[in-house]
Amino acid sequence: MVNTGDINGSSNLMDFLDEPIPDVGTYEDFHTIDWLREKSRDTDRHRKITSKSKESIWEFIKGLLDAWSGWVVMLLIGLLAGTLAGVIDLAVDWMTDLKEGICLNAFWYSHEQCCWTSDETTFEDRDKCPQWQKWSELMIDQSEGASAYILNYFLYIMWALSFAFLAVSLVRVFAPYACGSGIPEIKTILSGFIIRGYLGKWTLLIKTVTLVLVVSSGLSLGKEGPSVHVACCCGNLFSSLFSKYSKNEGKRREVLSAAAAVGVSVAFGAPIGGVLFSLEEVSYYFPLKTLWRSFFAALVAAFTLRSINPFGNSRLVLFYVEYHTPWYMAELFPFILLGVFGGLWGTLFIRCNIAWCRRRKTTKLGKYPVLEVIVVTAITALLAYPNPYTRRSTSELISELFNDCGALESSQLCDYINDPNMTRPVDDIPDRQAGAGVYTAMWQLALALIFKIIITIFTFGMKIPSGLFIPSIAVGAIAGRIVGVGVEQLAYHHHDWIIFRNWCRPGADCVTPGLYAMVGAAACLGGVTRMTVSLVVIMFELTGGLEYIVPLMAAAVTSKWVADAFGKEGIYEAHIHLNGYPFLDVKDEFTHRTLAMDVMRPRRGEPSLSVLTQDSMTVEDVETLIKDTDYNGFPVVVSRDSERLIGFAQRRELIIAIKNARQRQDGVVSNSIIYFTEDPPELPANSPHPLKLRRILNLSPFTVTDHTPMETVVDIFRKLGLRQCLVTRSGRLLGIITKKDVLRHMAQMANQDPESIMFN
Amino acid sequence: MVNTGDINGSSNLMDFLDEPIPDVGTYEDFHTIDWLREKSRDTDRHRKITSKSKESIWEFIKGLLDAWSGWVVMLLIGLLAGTLAGVIDLAVDWMTDLKEGICLNAFWYSHEQCCWTSDETTFEDRDKCPQWQKWSELMIDQSEGASAYILNYFLYIMWALSFAFLAVSLVRVFAPYACGSGIPEIKTILSGFIIRGYLGKWTLLIKTVTLVLVVSSGLSLGKEGPSVHVACCCGNLFSSLFSKYSKNEGKRREVLSAAAAVGVSVAFGAPIGGVLFSLEEVSYYFPLKTLWRSFFAALVAAFTLRSINPFGNSRLVLFYVEYHTPWYMAELFPFILLGVFGGLWGTLFIRCNIAWCRRRKTTKLGKYPVLEVIVVTAITALLAYPNPYTRRSTSELISELFNDCGALESSQLCDYINDPNMTRPVDDIPDRQAGAGVYTAMWQLALALIFKIIITIFTFGMKIPSGLFIPSIAVGAIAGRIVGVGVEQLAYHHHDWIIFRNWCRPGADCVTPGLYAMVGAAACLGGVTRMTVSLVVIMFELTGGLEYIVPLMAAAVTSKWVADAFGKEGIYEAHIHLNGYPFLDVKDEFTHRTLAMDVMRPRRGEPSLSVLTQDSMTVEDVETLIKDTDYNGFPVVVSRDSERLIGFAQRRELIIAIKNARQRQDGVVSNSIIYFTEDPPELPANSPHPLKLRRILNLSPFTVTDHTPMETVVDIFRKLGLRQCLVTRSGRLLGIITKKDVLRHMAQMANQDPESIMFN
Repeated sequence: MVNTGDINGSSNLMDFLDEPIPDVGTYEDFHTIDWLREKSRDTDRHRKITSKSKESIWEFIKGLLDAWSGWVVMLLIGLLAGTLAGVIDLAVDWMTDLKEGICLNAFWYSHEQCCWTSDETTFEDRDKCPQWQKWSELMIDQSEGASAYILNYFLYIMWALSFAFLAVSLVRVFAPYACGSGIPEIKTILSGFIIRGYLGKWTLLIKTVTLVLVVSSGLSLGKEGPSVHVACCCGNLFSSLFSKYSKNEGKRREVLSAAAAVGVSVAFGAPIGGVLFSLEEVSYYFPLKTLWRSFFAALVAAFTLRSINPFGNSRLVLFYVEYHTPWYMAELFPFILLGVFGGLWGTLFIRCNIAWCRRRKTTKLGKYPVLEVIVVTAITALLAYPNPYTRRSTSELISELFNDCGALESSQLCDYINDPNMTRPVDDIPDRQAGAGVYTAMWQLALALIFKIIITIFTFGMKIPSGLFIPSIAVGAIAGRIVGVGVEQLAYHHHDWIIFRNWCRPGADCVTPGLYAMVGAAACLGGVTRMTVSLVVIMFELTGGLEYIVPLMAAAVTSKWVADAFGKEGIYEAHIHLNGYPFLDVKDEFTHRTLAMDVMRPRRGEPSLSVLTQDSMTVEDVETLIKDTDYNGFPVVVSRDSERLIGFAQRRELIIAIKNARQRQDGVVSNSIIYFTEDPPELPANSPHPLKLRRILNLSPFTVTDHTPMETVVDIFRKLGLRQCLVTRSGRLLGIITKKDVLRHMAQMANQDPESIMFN
Repeated sequence: MVNTGDINGSSNLMDFLDEPIPDVGTYEDFHTIDWLREKSRDTDRHRKITSKSKESIWEFIKGLLDAWSGWVVMLLIGLLAGTLAGVIDLAVDWMTDLKEGICLNAFWYSHEQCCWTSDETTFEDRDKCPQWQKWSELMIDQSEGASAYILNYFLYIMWALSFAFLAVSLVRVFAPYACGSGIPEIKTILSGFIIRGYLGKWTLLIKTVTLVLVVSSGLSLGKEGPSVHVACCCGNLFSSLFSKYSKNEGKRREVLSAAAAVGVSVAFGAPIGGVLFSLEEVSYYFPLKTLWRSFFAALVAAFTLRSINPFGNSRLVLFYVEYHTPWYMAELFPFILLGVFGGLWGTLFIRCNIAWCRRRKTTKLGKYPVLEVIVVTAITALLAYPNPYTRRSTSELISELFNDCGALESSQLCDYINDPNMTRPVDDIPDRQAGAGVYTAMWQLALALIFKIIITIFTFGMKIPSGLFIPSIAVGAIAGRIVGVGVEQLAYHHHDWIIFRNWCRPGADCVTPGLYAMVGAAACLGGVTRMTVSLVVIMFELTGGLEYIVPLMAAAVTSKWVADAFGKEGIYEAHIHLNGYPFLDVKDEFTHRTLAMDVMRPRRGEPSLSVLTQDSMTVEDVETLIKDTDYNGFPVVVSRDSERLIGFAQRRELIIAIKNARQRQDGVVSNSIIYFTEDPPELPANSPHPLKLRRILNLSPFTVTDHTPMETVVDIFRKLGLRQCLVTRSGRLLGIITKKDVLRHMAQMANQDPESIMFN
């Protein structure tokens, strides 16, 4: 019994202006969008297209194209982001190696590409192929010795400094928004905040270029956060091509959520992990439709990246591992210990980093961003070069730490003492006694660990693109490898201990130190970001180690528990709070016993709410009200006495409507009466021409009663994405609660009762 | 400026009865819960515990225990569900083999366990170990020949029939709710519906036992859906141990969501896939906290199952595959074809199965469930035995189809003609010409495919536990393997074709038919269930084939597109609609241009809404109103004239409150006036004692205006989990919209305009 005719009829009764009011429906910079309104605008659009599509074949095709535009946008984002990621990978590879030397055949080749065609058999020999020349070889014709070392050292620092300087200058001059990881801001944008230019073309270009520079400079940072930002810029770029997305901030955010998934997908070659990361960590409103499209976009991007094949091994998996032994129950203990370490490191990192960033914001330090970058780069390069584990790129380091020692391995980490009597197949080497190389490596790794832990705290948050995943993984992998080698040697020397006796006979391959590195990496990454499911999936996709689900999960669970015991905030939420973004976190639970009336404005003793009446205010009255206040909108009531609510008018739309009416509608003067009713009464002939504004009135403003518990109000704001909500009692308008009021109240309550965290 | 003192003050002013009203706050069978109310009740509880915990150490410990009870429940569910899954696997293994023969050493050994210690080297020889006796060998001492075949055939059918008969009888007599897959009902329950006994102890017991019986009987069904049901029963069982969960239907559903994840986790050894399945397919309200706990529970369950080690290979991965060649771009074409096949099969299956189930519901057929099961089992066994690919258990079939042919493989599917000149390592066999065995296998597989497609349509929905994953995977795997062998032979015989020339030189191993089986399986499973991300993750975890993400995703995307083109509903949603459950799907989009006033009751011309007034109705008035109507609750207004809303009173709570007052409160008689106001006025001494019921009044009923678009209303119902919503205009109460009204309206609109699906 739905009377659609009646609705159309009643909408005809409304007074449409001759032409639609321009600019109505857009938002100002640093404002919050109204999700419900965006959604209903999209449905209107959709309905129009559907009804039109029945008129002609052409309209039908247009309708179909519109319906498919979502997939087209995903395809384009996947292609561009995948291509950019491939280019970034290739450029980083080349520039990282440029710090050490150059390829004589073709200067644009990286070390690996340069020596690719070399005939040497072992990896170590191949690395020393004649085509690749270190700077000292090229300039003073010496490859060994003190002067060669000093020259290489010096040039390493110089290259690092010039890369970093170039990067920070580009960011400063062309795109200030290109700094940082971008994930806190993208979370805020996805929750409905508008930051114009944050996802613009300049940001895209500069972030891509500077990301290459800073990663190559050897700073302790990674490329996944910035990759997410770059992918979101791509998403924003392409969504502006389709009116479905460019004109609707809500729909645009669906595209951006998918783009965030693409970012992780290409940074790590982890499409599923990327989708889950977007779902768990970044996105605010993530309907299943978006899940599905994200999945498609991530697939396209991963596929594009694979076609570019930056690593030359046609693998998507960044740190492919292959272990030959299962893990044993008793090993859960060191795994859980690594989880505890990860949780503690996460807490330490977040606290110190936030403290340092706060200092940067509040003291003079923040005024010299270029100098800061130069100093940190200089210290990093100076300390990193002498240690072989920090000199190379962090990805290579992680890759080596994750690897199991094969028989042909020439790395120092695999310098075990072979038993000459043992003849075994190549891939199943028993536990052996550590040689001198392993002990040296342990010392160097320990130093690298301390160095990484400290320098990362100062690096993250500088005015350059910087991601956290790779440094966190590196810290965890170093710690894990050290623990792994320790357990291995313990098991080798003490086969008879009760904990080893059951599973580790002499001559067996029972402990895999690489697995410990992987577990440690998961723990540290979890401690910093507080990711859960997406973390484990990303670790799988990074390493291909699907068999090691239980160790990874155990470490991730422990790490999260430990870190959460010291504070619920992950690094991204901490930065959001630090920067004061209006972000209503879906993870925070609000459990206080306050009511809507405690939060709404006006408070007791404040002047009463500024409202419009439906048929008694003049244009001048309204203009005065607009000038005197800075509210985003005004409730419209029947009369000041009854205070019965009929709708809500946006400030911006009121201003535009009045301006337009004054310009274009004859007879509208300052003392014209504004009518929000359906049918304005017949006025005497000499009275000024009335202004009918029912069209801009939102007839379904959201209301709650004054007795509504704040937890319900918070829930409503979160789930429906409201901007504001009106408070009534027995049908009378009492006040208003905005998103900012809610955030302020939540912060207040959290400060009052910090202990309650333990019981959540 | 939060005035908490004031709130406590005002709540003291309310009139508490001497003791709390019993039974208030619970729901009746087949009713919908109010999520907001459950949530706020939980917060109250939480607040009470937090404030008490400051009083003494003991209360503090109790508070901590309460906070950790969520994890304890998860641990218990994981342990029990993992154990049950292990027991089910072992029992199914044994009973499936019992249909063919028995182990002489120990009758409780399955064929594989029986021959485990045998010394034979090849798998085929080991399968014929002397300890294992076929029935014909045992009874007439013949292992070959016509009479042995007939005897084995006959006993196979008899065992199958007796298992199936026992199963259907147990379900009929002890637990009618134990039938079916359970997922449609669990989806409905998780969305807030109450079905008492559906997750009870009897259902748990009977479903576990009958699941073993029906899977062993060789019917075309799987165990994952029922596993989810079993795990949810465990969840329900353990949540009743903790008052936090037993007394709050909303919190209980969080546990059940996690339990659903556990179910898939143990059915497939796929913990991450399980969590995603619960998130994507089953759950309604899935906060991140639940994600995290589900993850933990799934971990514990997978770990428990691994400790029981039912497959004897200490792998979690059910169908572990290891392929030795990558896939090539040109292969995307057959993969996408398989995707199309999967989509078509999904559509065909859903349509036919729903038509058959509708017939069962509406005709006499439904009255003979036992006979139906017997007939279907007899037909299945009769047709399955002659074909070696349908005789064995479906899991074994899938495992064989997924596998790549090694050099030692003795299966018919691997009967290729070896080139005698070729000497190559064992695991890298080039493409070879198919031998006679492969051609026979192809015919048998084609017959098996037709058989499985048809019989599954009639099997799913009978009064026995039945899951759909395994049959769908089997259909896809068979089709995929056939296509794979076809492509392989094409490539072998036509190396010079342009599509093969680039990647398939003679003597190379270019096509892996097992991979095609895997891709086909994903496509078919996707077509039936419309899962997306969880599908791909489950396929990974089932097979360990992380390298094959792009083929799997391509097939899954295609399959979903094709299937969605014929109808948006997956099999579970289709069954929900068929059974008429009040399920508000988050996936359906409502895009019609109706307003709240078109849906609310009373409609035009109907008698006006039954309301209570705050201070003028007597006990008798209210009792009459309750007797004359069957509404779940009544709005309370200031007066009938003003119709200004002040709250909402639940029918059930009104009845209980009045009954209690009449029994226990002196002076409450039929013409006592009921007050919902804060302070009832002083009454003359001779008037009857008033009844103060503000306590049961919900002071924050949800309201929308009559002009609110229905799409917003649908959104609100969905996201906030409302039971009903009141409709107002300018502060006056106009009508009410319940969840059922919304569902009815959505169905109506969908019927009016079925075409609009194309544009979604």
